[in-house]
Amino acid sequence: MTKYRLLSGIKSPADLKCLPETELESLCEEIRQYLIECLSVNPGHFASSMGAVEIIVALHYVFDTPDDHIVFDVGHQAYTHKLLTGRFEEFETQRRKGGISGFPFPAESEYDSFVCGHAGNSISAALGLAIADRNTPGRENRKTVALIGDASIGNGLAFEGLNNVAQSPNNMLIVLNDNDMSIDDNVGALHRYLSDLSTSKGYNRVRYNLYKMLRRHGIIQEKSKGLVLRFNNALKSLVARQQNIFEGLNIRYFGPFNGNDVLKMVKVLRDIKDMEGPRILHIHTKKGKGFTAAELEPQLWHAPGKFDPESGRRASDLNVSQVKTPPLWQDVFGESLLELAEKDDDVIGITAAMPSGTSVGKLSQMPNRMFDVGISEGHAVTFAGGMAAGGKKPYVAIYSAFLQRAFDNIIHDVAIQGLPVRFCIDRAGIVGEDGVTHHGMLDIAYLRIIPGLKIASPMDARTLRDIMHASLEWNFPVAIRYPRGRSDSSDFKQPLREILPGRGRALKVSSDAKIAILSFGPVGLDVQQAISQLEEMGINADHYDMIWAKPLDSQLLSEIANKYDAVITVEDGVRSGGFGSAVSEWFDANSPTVSVRRLGIPDKWILHGSPAELKAECGYDTAGIVSAVKEINDEISSTQR
Amino acid sequence: MTKYRLLSGIKSPADLKCLPETELESLCEEIRQYLIECLSVNPGHFASSMGAVEIIVALHYVFDTPDDHIVFDVGHQAYTHKLLTGRFEEFETQRRKGGISGFPFPAESEYDSFVCGHAGNSISAALGLAIADRNTPGRENRKTVALIGDASIGNGLAFEGLNNVAQSPNNMLIVLNDNDMSIDDNVGALHRYLSDLSTSKGYNRVRYNLYKMLRRHGIIQEKSKGLVLRFNNALKSLVARQQNIFEGLNIRYFGPFNGNDVLKMVKVLRDIKDMEGPRILHIHTKKGKGFTAAELEPQLWHAPGKFDPESGRRASDLNVSQVKTPPLWQDVFGESLLELAEKDDDVIGITAAMPSGTSVGKLSQMPNRMFDVGISEGHAVTFAGGMAAGGKKPYVAIYSAFLQRAFDNIIHDVAIQGLPVRFCIDRAGIVGEDGVTHHGMLDIAYLRIIPGLKIASPMDARTLRDIMHASLEWNFPVAIRYPRGRSDSSDFKQPLREILPGRGRALKVSSDAKIAILSFGPVGLDVQQAISQLEEMGINADHYDMIWAKPLDSQLLSEIANKYDAVITVEDGVRSGGFGSAVSEWFDANSPTVSVRRLGIPDKWILHGSPAELKAECGYDTAGIVSAVKEINDEISSTQR
Repeated sequence: MTKYRLLSGIKSPADLKCLPETELESLCEEIRQYLIECLSVNPGHFASSMGAVEIIVALHYVFDTPDDHIVFDVGHQAYTHKLLTGRFEEFETQRRKGGISGFPFPAESEYDSFVCGHAGNSISAALGLAIADRNTPGRENRKTVALIGDASIGNGLAFEGLNNVAQSPNNMLIVLNDNDMSIDDNVGALHRYLSDLSTSKGYNRVRYNLYKMLRRHGIIQEKSKGLVLRFNNALKSLVARQQNIFEGLNIRYFGPFNGNDVLKMVKVLRDIKDMEGPRILHIHTKKGKGFTAAELEPQLWHAPGKFDPESGRRASDLNVSQVKTPPLWQDVFGESLLELAEKDDDVIGITAAMPSGTSVGKLSQMPNRMFDVGISEGHAVTFAGGMAAGGKKPYVAIYSAFLQRAFDNIIHDVAIQGLPVRFCIDRAGIVGEDGVTHHGMLDIAYLRIIPGLKIASPMDARTLRDIMHASLEWNFPVAIRYPRGRSDSSDFKQPLREILPGRGRALKVSSDAKIAILSFGPVGLDVQQAISQLEEMGINADHYDMIWAKPLDSQLLSEIANKYDAVITVEDGVRSGGFGSAVSEWFDANSPTVSVRRLGIPDKWILHGSPAELKAECGYDTAGIVSAVKEINDEISSTQR
Repeated sequence: MTKYRLLSGIKSPADLKCLPETELESLCEEIRQYLIECLSVNPGHFASSMGAVEIIVALHYVFDTPDDHIVFDVGHQAYTHKLLTGRFEEFETQRRKGGISGFPFPAESEYDSFVCGHAGNSISAALGLAIADRNTPGRENRKTVALIGDASIGNGLAFEGLNNVAQSPNNMLIVLNDNDMSIDDNVGALHRYLSDLSTSKGYNRVRYNLYKMLRRHGIIQEKSKGLVLRFNNALKSLVARQQNIFEGLNIRYFGPFNGNDVLKMVKVLRDIKDMEGPRILHIHTKKGKGFTAAELEPQLWHAPGKFDPESGRRASDLNVSQVKTPPLWQDVFGESLLELAEKDDDVIGITAAMPSGTSVGKLSQMPNRMFDVGISEGHAVTFAGGMAAGGKKPYVAIYSAFLQRAFDNIIHDVAIQGLPVRFCIDRAGIVGEDGVTHHGMLDIAYLRIIPGLKIASPMDARTLRDIMHASLEWNFPVAIRYPRGRSDSSDFKQPLREILPGRGRALKVSSDAKIAILSFGPVGLDVQQAISQLEEMGINADHYDMIWAKPLDSQLLSEIANKYDAVITVEDGVRSGGFGSAVSEWFDANSPTVSVRRLGIPDKWILHGSPAELKAECGYDTAGIVSAVKEINDEISSTQR
């Protein structure tokens, strides 16, 4: 590891703090090289991580972690933090089963202050930590830093945090890492505002220099609150050409500064570290910094997959031209949506900062038909409710785990009014490497308790398109869930089949089977494989693709109740409260003699790993289904003997 | 009704628009008198409604509803709107079963544009309506108004709305009704900011007058976007002493004006009605306006109950001194919390704008121990997560229906990290007159699917205090739910009993009963009554107070499985997915021969009415329990015959 002369010697931030400032730029360079080396073979979040190297080095250099806290927001950019806090050796295991997480995770390291998989929580969490320290004897002087991006700060939770930051005494520093884009282009008025702010550097520079000068001459002292306030007021009357939003919220503003200049960052952080009261430091960084291809196309390089560190070619580019793989589920959705939009002027696509991630961006060329509202899932849903109340047909595509943020909006702003909003729930079920904060495991369970909301999931790509087309005429709220990853078939544009709400289908019915497997969604494909394997073992089980978790197909269930001794449900979601639970409730009420065994995600947090590994861990992959059927088959046989 | 000369003649806003402006002040006076007359005998939301009379009259006078939309926020203040839109005759039925709702409700009237029981949704919903109109042939010129209070606008959803308002062309007007308080005193930096804004009237007056003058002289025209923009820029360079937050978000700002001056409101609304693009009109109104007692103590008069219109004495004041009633559940919680806070310095109380509604305000005299974060439920929970990560013991008290807004915060910022936040869920279950948006019917179901979160509910006041005290030493996230209204006993401060997580209790066990009733929470008191009534009929049923919906008491359930033929679960929550569903899942897995009947709220929206009426409608009041037991008893008897 001589290649990483400095980095390999840093076992904790204490080692970093021993480096002379003159070495910091070299360290940043080493970190970049290491990130390129690792992430080119073991994929991860690349562009944000490359942009945030200097600010993270500077934070650990100036602050005293873990006594001081650094709270990340989302944490796409936190790899440098992992490398500096004792995880250099393990870094190659990141995002793999049993390896370290792709995000900061408190259970993994005392340096990881808070979970940060969903955007916008850092300010609120950091405020809690800061006030807890402030009011704990012996910890009063600890500092808390929230590192938040310019996309996250437009989230409602972040605003609620900002609105509360100045309410109670605390020493919190918010570092606003402004790289001018989230995963996709950034949107929202606040974002435009930040750009304006950056063009009015004069005022802020005057202000900052004045502050330093006054401080140097002892004219203001940090410990004297009265003087600081007077300083602020005086300054305003001196040079106030504009009152900025953050100062409007009573948070002192510094910036913007170049966040890719590590020495500057160290200097500024030292300057403002010991100031009393909440502050915001606005920095500009470049996403993908140090890797030309990523600097040029930061969106593509958000999570680029494997790539060639020399040529800057992504493996996915090479694949596309060579191997014809089935389309991603999101693209089956996106292409179907585009068909609908071309057919019906009232069709609207809505995304919360994920036009490419959800493929809603396929509508981007149709004026007034696609709305990217930024990282504002709650607004996306309520806005869709307003659209539906105004006669439009909104399709809101949000990842399952992020839709949790709009739970009340679904209830209050859509379902109570029976508004025909179509929720297109992407990344539903186990997502794999992104891990615990990103699995979409709860949606079936939290949606099925909402009166009037219907829930469908297609087993295959063709059925997803069928459902999408059928939904055009539905006048009720409906959720359509589909997973991350590739669908089953490129030939999904087949003649449309009728989809009726609450109507499932029998896929395999035999005369002698005693066990019926009821599946919901693409896990039905695993059920089909399991059934083939079971047949080879001489065990016969039948298969029903229920399509709807709500309403359940009562007629089909009645037939099943009359025909089988046992029912197994399979879903890519929690097994308590979900689809299987609904089926279990139905049998309880209508046919209590049939036993129901539920397969799905158990009642525990599932960490990261490949989807196949995690489904196996949960026991609902093909092997898990086979073994559940065998077990029940044995029970039935032994009872009958 | 000669008393209401003008009001009684208004069958719809069309009639209002026929009145000469000179009559508007008299109309407002009549509306106030009528509100006093009605609400003094049929309680409702008084103080906000009294403050908003003029702005609502002016909106309906100037705009063309229902083609134009008025979207209320929360809707505590919407009574005047109901009176002007054809519901004068029915107004006396408001909040009663079968009568009109206490809030705007689209199913009730075409003038009610959107549901508005939870704060902060108006801007997002109105934006959806405005853009839908804008892009629908024939509806392009319709206007949309969002009427939002100064407390609601601090909510994260409202901010997400504001951040998106200027993204797409629309004609939206936001009226910011600033009455300087929500239900309790208002908090947050934005609120302080609004006060500052109000003291800088000069700039805004100059601006507004200049705008009118230029427009009168044809120097600016609304239809020419370029000119308007240039006007704005020119104005800024002329008089810009401050750039206000809303203009920072690209929304034109007008105000502040006196919102209780109806003629002024009409004039201003006419001036800005036809302007292109999003605007915000900031008005000041007085909560309780026109009724001295309410003006003096607006908090007490938010929802005062019955009162004497002459003396201004509230019936509740009179009761307190005469009849000793059991304390409210919220006070049993609040007094227990105070005991804990006095015992342990780490105990923290957190409320989202409801210090009096939740009784967290009982800690208000303890510095740094109580945090009111405003209408920011998401922040409240994440902040509590940060507090817990910092070693504190936060108790977050939020109404069940509003806690839905923090669903993802509970998951992501608390439960994934296993942080010991105590969720004290007030108003859990049917709440009664506030109706469909306020019932706390989903919490058991949406919380029990979250790994690692435990859920308790006390049957009686003493047990709530027992649970609170036990929770002091718990190091896991836990929800403690209790309903609206009065508890069972004033003598709840008894010697503490041990409460173990996942341990229920047998309340009545007999040797010959074939039916066990398992209750969760205060519905157990109804079960006890039902059992007495059943005994008189010669039917024997046993009773278990499970205390925990998660984890379930497996040991107790095993005993129950061995002893009874049938189990009935009773809960004040949805019967799909909730406590009964969990019990049903348990029996499915462990003892499939026992039948489980679930009593609770059916899978439909429950409107308003008294709690007793609504529980009867849902079939889990005492009579409902009795009849369920009888029915099952008959089934068992007939099987055995």
